[in-house]
Amino acid sequence: MIVVIFRATIRAVDPEYSQVAARLRTLALEEFGCLAFHAVTEGRTEIALSYWPTAEAIAAWRAHPEHRTAQQRGQRLWYESYSVEVATITREYHAP
Amino acid sequence: MIVVIFRATIRAVDPEYSQVAARLRTLALEEFGCLAFHAVTEGRTEIALSYWPTAEAIAAWRAHPEHRTAQQRGQRLWYESYSVEVATITREYHAP
Repeated sequence: MIVVIFRATIRAVDPEYSQVAARLRTLALEEFGCLAFHAVTEGRTEIALSYWPTAEAIAAWRAHPEHRTAQQRGQRLWYESYSVEVATITREYHAP
Repeated sequence: MIVVIFRATIRAVDPEYSQVAARLRTLALEEFGCLAFHAVTEGRTEIALSYWPTAEAIAAWRAHPEHRTAQQRGQRLWYESYSVEVATITREYHAP
């Protein structure tokens, strides 16, 4: 399983931001095979984790026009800076 | 680079929780070679990301007595549930 780690410092959010974030999450989960999505925001820091079965699923999701538009708005309006890391899960455990 | 993704649902926190969390972060960064540490809490959800050069560094940190004690307290007192995922970063980008 592959995890995409999105980590951002927020510049300013607007009502569109929440709509777009919710829409992208729905798209990922319902149309692009995303297995799970967890986003947490504290102050100006946002971390969003999305879990995927394959690199191809991630590539298809990244290339979607709505996602590309959101990336541009994110860079221009919402985020002061952000990073994306793609990582392959090698070990995991859950409690309880 | 390896990332450890800690994701938890918080049951209840107490003053000791913050002290232990800060102490573990300092230990990881200053004594066990952790490269970066980012923790975000929103409501009852906590995500903490730590970045490491090698699996050996993670193993040494996990085996430290203070960390083991904290794990036990976490399971017993602070967390309703949690998961830990270890993942190898294959690709990353930053903007700007």
